[in-house]
Amino acid sequence: MEIYADNAATTAVSPAVVEAMLPYFTDVYGNPSSLHTSGQKAKEALEDARARIAAQLNCLPNEITFTSGGTEADNQAILTIAHKGAKTGKKHIISTAFEHHAVLHTLEKLKKEGFEIELLDVHSTGVIDPQQVADAIREDTCLVTIMYVNNEIGTIQPIAEIGRICNEKKVIFHTDAVQAVGHVPVDVRRDNIDMLSISAHKFHGPKGIGVLYARRGILLENVIEGGAQERGKRPGTENLPAIMGMAKALEDANALLNDDIYAAQPELIAKRDRLIAGLEKIPHGELNGDRTRRVGGTVNFCFEAIEGESLLLLLDDKGIRASSGSACTSGSLDPSHVLLAIGRPHEVAHGSLRLSFDNSITNEEIDYMIKAVADTVDYLRNMSPVWRDLQQGKRSFVFPE
Amino acid sequence: MEIYADNAATTAVSPAVVEAMLPYFTDVYGNPSSLHTSGQKAKEALEDARARIAAQLNCLPNEITFTSGGTEADNQAILTIAHKGAKTGKKHIISTAFEHHAVLHTLEKLKKEGFEIELLDVHSTGVIDPQQVADAIREDTCLVTIMYVNNEIGTIQPIAEIGRICNEKKVIFHTDAVQAVGHVPVDVRRDNIDMLSISAHKFHGPKGIGVLYARRGILLENVIEGGAQERGKRPGTENLPAIMGMAKALEDANALLNDDIYAAQPELIAKRDRLIAGLEKIPHGELNGDRTRRVGGTVNFCFEAIEGESLLLLLDDKGIRASSGSACTSGSLDPSHVLLAIGRPHEVAHGSLRLSFDNSITNEEIDYMIKAVADTVDYLRNMSPVWRDLQQGKRSFVFPE
Repeated sequence: MEIYADNAATTAVSPAVVEAMLPYFTDVYGNPSSLHTSGQKAKEALEDARARIAAQLNCLPNEITFTSGGTEADNQAILTIAHKGAKTGKKHIISTAFEHHAVLHTLEKLKKEGFEIELLDVHSTGVIDPQQVADAIREDTCLVTIMYVNNEIGTIQPIAEIGRICNEKKVIFHTDAVQAVGHVPVDVRRDNIDMLSISAHKFHGPKGIGVLYARRGILLENVIEGGAQERGKRPGTENLPAIMGMAKALEDANALLNDDIYAAQPELIAKRDRLIAGLEKIPHGELNGDRTRRVGGTVNFCFEAIEGESLLLLLDDKGIRASSGSACTSGSLDPSHVLLAIGRPHEVAHGSLRLSFDNSITNEEIDYMIKAVADTVDYLRNMSPVWRDLQQGKRSFVFPE
Repeated sequence: MEIYADNAATTAVSPAVVEAMLPYFTDVYGNPSSLHTSGQKAKEALEDARARIAAQLNCLPNEITFTSGGTEADNQAILTIAHKGAKTGKKHIISTAFEHHAVLHTLEKLKKEGFEIELLDVHSTGVIDPQQVADAIREDTCLVTIMYVNNEIGTIQPIAEIGRICNEKKVIFHTDAVQAVGHVPVDVRRDNIDMLSISAHKFHGPKGIGVLYARRGILLENVIEGGAQERGKRPGTENLPAIMGMAKALEDANALLNDDIYAAQPELIAKRDRLIAGLEKIPHGELNGDRTRRVGGTVNFCFEAIEGESLLLLLDDKGIRASSGSACTSGSLDPSHVLLAIGRPHEVAHGSLRLSFDNSITNEEIDYMIKAVADTVDYLRNMSPVWRDLQQGKRSFVFPE
């Protein structure tokens, strides 16, 4: 059996999305900035895709800027508002300790430029309390940037409430929604979002394309300089095939969702909960993040006395493509900053497993994963000196049961 | 008859390139940073593409960084060297007046940061004399950035000589080779190039992908912050399908070229010269840029008493997809900065026509274009008050014949 359980890292492009892209490689291939028929056909398609994506997010087409992906969108959003804030002496930015590195590393850069970065505690639940944001906002706060769904543990933040608070206090609110859009019903008006980042390859769209939504009135700062595309704010010939693919992928993904953020895909959630229940039977392990305020497709556990990388490789031998956390930092020996942020000690943060899947997963596959993880954890523990010490009482369990 | 004669704006993706991309959308779709089999298969393909592209440029695989396109590559190259130079007080940068806006606008940004930008005269030929570079280099020069082939008029710069001079004077040499790679035989070692930018969609590869070559020892500065991809220098999940397409497109394009930069595609050049000879019969018009030191696929003319946009739209009605210059600035009322740089007065710079094609063009199509342009120029002039004034001697011709 082969199970791809790493959808949070990237997804397969759906055949329907490939079909939607194909004409734009070889047929409608003109440069949308060209005045001739070939260019104008491309331009029409581009604007059609923009309108369709705007409709999915409940914003205006001219609030959409196409970028090379979520990372670039995060950078552009944050730099825009920070540098605008600096002009009026507002150099305080609020975020969380478990953001994606596209956000955290951009904030680190701003710190070197003299900004004050305040990272909110995300608790053991991996969920921010909106009151934390209200308490943290100061006169000199220019930006709140908080992710919609955490990429490693899948917890959903109370974005609408946070957005409402930011709105009331007239602070710009950006959310990295890379793991949310296409997975939960995101609506920028309902959620009071000023700026939002998207990456198509997280919802069965192509890699290399994303969106920065910026509410009307926010003038973007260029991250790169060049031609006049995207109202001069994102130069470079528009990647039309990828944009058409993204529009189709977003429509298809959202068509599967109902209106309830915490129950957007009931069937998928039932499978997720079956997986959680099964993995909880493994002793001395624990689910990471809140049990119910999470997306349907992501489950993350820590297991005591386990090296995450060994677990991954043995699961891979059993046909399960899983991850220990973010793919972007694989190869790093440091434990996940997300797991540390929710309070996991170093020794168990190293023993993490993320299984991320979509609605195509079957109960049979869920059960196969549960058995494979249980067997592999057992196998690894039997070889582990740490486990022996724990058993002999020479060190104590973090997870007593 | 329909003739796409705007290859300098963008090209159709070749069917072979689409074939090369397809498996990476739906089959080998893993995240190259993931440790499991699916990720490692993607990683192998990524490194295979990197090696193949490096072989085409005659550099090392780890000298290749994948970017979202030529614009981003230009930005990253220039900012890297400028900011490195600033640390040792070197804030003088040499470029030319007819670079692409990805270069010029980045240089303008640096000017605001206190850099001194010196733009070399490109003469009426549109070709730099290497001695100009030698004369301009100072003790505090950190960077020379000169494009390999001009995007509007197609002239080829003496890059190897410029590179040799920069090398001798220990100044970093970057070239925007977006219009050169795949069109002339570029070899970074032979040409003494330290840094070079590529865009795949200019040689029948996909949009949204490019390369920044940086000679070993040059530590790139991040333009965007995020994950650890591309040795930490270009974050964001690698766009593997596009990268595989680019590798294939570059191999296919280079396979058509011989070793002579000024005669890389003799058959194409014969057609180009047939087009030039035909268009030269139109009175009061002139070829822009040197007659022989140009790529095989680009021809640019100025015609007196013609509005370029009207000419384009009427040619479009006749099935010819042409341009007045760069697509990136279409919609702008300003005349082309390239044509002004080669000394064209405003009044004729407005009457420009760029025809850019590849080796699939036929002599029949060339002849069709010649007749269509001649007829349309004639038609437009008959309606033009400027033309009447010229005829009546009320104003004088820029091009007397």
